[in-house]
Amino acid sequence: MTHTFLEKMNAETLDDQTTNRLHSRILELSEIGRTEDQGSKRMGYSDKELAAKEKIKSWMEAIGMSVRTDGAGNVFGRYKGHDDSEVFMAGSHVDSVPNGGHFDGVTGVLSALEIAELWHAENYTPAYSYEVVIFSDEEGSRFNSGLTGSRAFMGLIGEEELDKYRDPDNKTIDDVLEHIGSDRTEFLKAEGPDYNIKMYGEIHIEQARQLKEKALPVGIVSGIAGATRTNITFKGEAGHAGSTPMHQRKDALVQASEFVRTLPDIPPSISQTAVATVGKLKVIPNGVNVIPGEVQLVVDARDINEDHQAELIQAVQQHAEKVAGQSEVTVDIDLTTRITPIPIGEDVIGKMEEAFRRNNQVPVHLPSGAGHDAMSVGTKHPITMLFVRSIKGISHNPEEFSHISDIRDAVLILKDFFEQYE
Amino acid sequence: MTHTFLEKMNAETLDDQTTNRLHSRILELSEIGRTEDQGSKRMGYSDKELAAKEKIKSWMEAIGMSVRTDGAGNVFGRYKGHDDSEVFMAGSHVDSVPNGGHFDGVTGVLSALEIAELWHAENYTPAYSYEVVIFSDEEGSRFNSGLTGSRAFMGLIGEEELDKYRDPDNKTIDDVLEHIGSDRTEFLKAEGPDYNIKMYGEIHIEQARQLKEKALPVGIVSGIAGATRTNITFKGEAGHAGSTPMHQRKDALVQASEFVRTLPDIPPSISQTAVATVGKLKVIPNGVNVIPGEVQLVVDARDINEDHQAELIQAVQQHAEKVAGQSEVTVDIDLTTRITPIPIGEDVIGKMEEAFRRNNQVPVHLPSGAGHDAMSVGTKHPITMLFVRSIKGISHNPEEFSHISDIRDAVLILKDFFEQYE
Repeated sequence: MTHTFLEKMNAETLDDQTTNRLHSRILELSEIGRTEDQGSKRMGYSDKELAAKEKIKSWMEAIGMSVRTDGAGNVFGRYKGHDDSEVFMAGSHVDSVPNGGHFDGVTGVLSALEIAELWHAENYTPAYSYEVVIFSDEEGSRFNSGLTGSRAFMGLIGEEELDKYRDPDNKTIDDVLEHIGSDRTEFLKAEGPDYNIKMYGEIHIEQARQLKEKALPVGIVSGIAGATRTNITFKGEAGHAGSTPMHQRKDALVQASEFVRTLPDIPPSISQTAVATVGKLKVIPNGVNVIPGEVQLVVDARDINEDHQAELIQAVQQHAEKVAGQSEVTVDIDLTTRITPIPIGEDVIGKMEEAFRRNNQVPVHLPSGAGHDAMSVGTKHPITMLFVRSIKGISHNPEEFSHISDIRDAVLILKDFFEQYE
Repeated sequence: MTHTFLEKMNAETLDDQTTNRLHSRILELSEIGRTEDQGSKRMGYSDKELAAKEKIKSWMEAIGMSVRTDGAGNVFGRYKGHDDSEVFMAGSHVDSVPNGGHFDGVTGVLSALEIAELWHAENYTPAYSYEVVIFSDEEGSRFNSGLTGSRAFMGLIGEEELDKYRDPDNKTIDDVLEHIGSDRTEFLKAEGPDYNIKMYGEIHIEQARQLKEKALPVGIVSGIAGATRTNITFKGEAGHAGSTPMHQRKDALVQASEFVRTLPDIPPSISQTAVATVGKLKVIPNGVNVIPGEVQLVVDARDINEDHQAELIQAVQQHAEKVAGQSEVTVDIDLTTRITPIPIGEDVIGKMEEAFRRNNQVPVHLPSGAGHDAMSVGTKHPITMLFVRSIKGISHNPEEFSHISDIRDAVLILKDFFEQYE
């Protein structure tokens, strides 16, 4: 039996100020763009995303944080530390996929803010000023991009990419920026040239079931995988499914199937964190009585380690060639996307493990297969990420859910980590 | 290098009256509906199909055959024999798929007529009256049906099926029949109640490469396979291609691929004539970064023997269940189509083998994987079929081609067969 988001929220155990605050704030934000089936619809740069940012800005200001917004719409709330020469930063995003849930992104922003709330209540001053960031349009649903705000912040988006942006209503980035009171020049200046980030931390729901299966509330992200995409086309010979004897066939689908079936054996042979998936596959001509003459498929292969990623790509290609080589079917291979994985420093992981132990939590390591805003920040600055247990491992779906107490556990660990970080 | 139909026709060796007549008649018919790339477009019940029938009727009448057309548009040209109580019949169709070739169907009709031409020239009277038949709309492109004319002739089409017919312009069968000067009542009366067919013979291009590989011009069809269609759906669990570890996946495509890859092992274990094909396959949701949650595919499985066909269907289903049983993926199986195979009598094949030997030809046996008008006639009457070598095995394509001398060889064998048939 599936419970709705509100039913599940009602059933949550709230036993301290942090769980109560996170609970009420998640509920309050969920009202902005809540869909009929209690999912979330807050597209990047939409009025809904803006409204969510405004709500959070009001909470930031209520505890005396100074708030600014950059040309990409990223919101920064600053909590003053002893030293302003560098900053601690934590955050995530508040946009969602068209019918997503209420935890992806929101968890990271509210957790980051909760650290400031606790420091404010404790009258604590961190070593460095602490900024809570809300990055714009992480999901990229608006322009079919991704990590838009965080990449702009890191200066990773140029004019050429912006020129290609068209939203579902065919609006350009200029139209959209005008609506939020910015423009292209300001967007491109979003890169914080004077930002000296000592450490960026992001708490995110896991989007998988590993923590659930290990019965642990929080895990340490060991690295963020870089996605690669390889287009593979098997070419055989179309023929009549009735009149062509079995031994005279050059069936492209039979060979593509041999490839797909044996592909899962490759990632474990390279690393524990490697994954490879054929999610998209097209049969040509796809006629019920025609032997497939061609099959086009895309392999999505990832690893958190750059060397392993390279080995994985090569192994996938060699596998396709080997499968084709055993038959009369030919193969074309084209690597179209290769995103560099973002490692997380061993020293940072070591310090995070200490924070786990101080909080009586088991420091399990998990790779992040999906991209996150931390990935953008990590191209130039040290980062750390925590995953919060995800019920059923479901995300980008109204059923997405994490227990508030698990989020609280992550908040306390990251808070402790920043307090002890040198 | 690919030659066009006309280039290939120009290069043909014509060394007797039969090859010359067949050559010129194929060329003449090819002008009716010839496409830009020299293919054929003569949809069933179109003006083009009618024009082709009219042309052939004029050739029938030129040698004194009496011609009649039934309510389904089937044309019968009768060459008088010694006995009218039964008839010999031979023919095929003159409609084509939207961009087909000039041999599929036409070869059978012109070959049947050529037998009458030769008898006429020899002043020969066959034991029984001999009818050359042009069945309407064999390809079924008009109404997404198939064997329309021959099934009407056998009384195999009822009101219910007719009611469903809609052509690409949304015309009903009534609209179409009115255009050819018939109506529904006449169509349903097309069944020839007074037909006592002693033997129906059909010459057809092979649509495969077996004769080419054996370097033989003509082969004996050993039976006409019955097509079966089984819809098979593998259901796993969709998930994020980046964040779901390999060992936690329920990838529907990986299991479907195991099924497709090993399917070709099944038919040879059942009979030499069995075939099974997955031509159509759909991945859901088919997103490049989503583990496939569902795969829907269709298995087209055929055999010329009814018992073997039943074994084949069962083996395919068991195979799907076995593959799913080895994983956490589930499977739904639905047999949607099951056409009874049409056997060809051993005595008939034996007599045909004798005709081959009398003509110094090697009597090789071939199954027909595709359906033909003979299949309709064969539901009630004895039939025989000959395949003519098909260059490259290509059909339903402008490149479809058979040498005229190979067609002549088939004509001479079938003529001899009728002359000796008792």
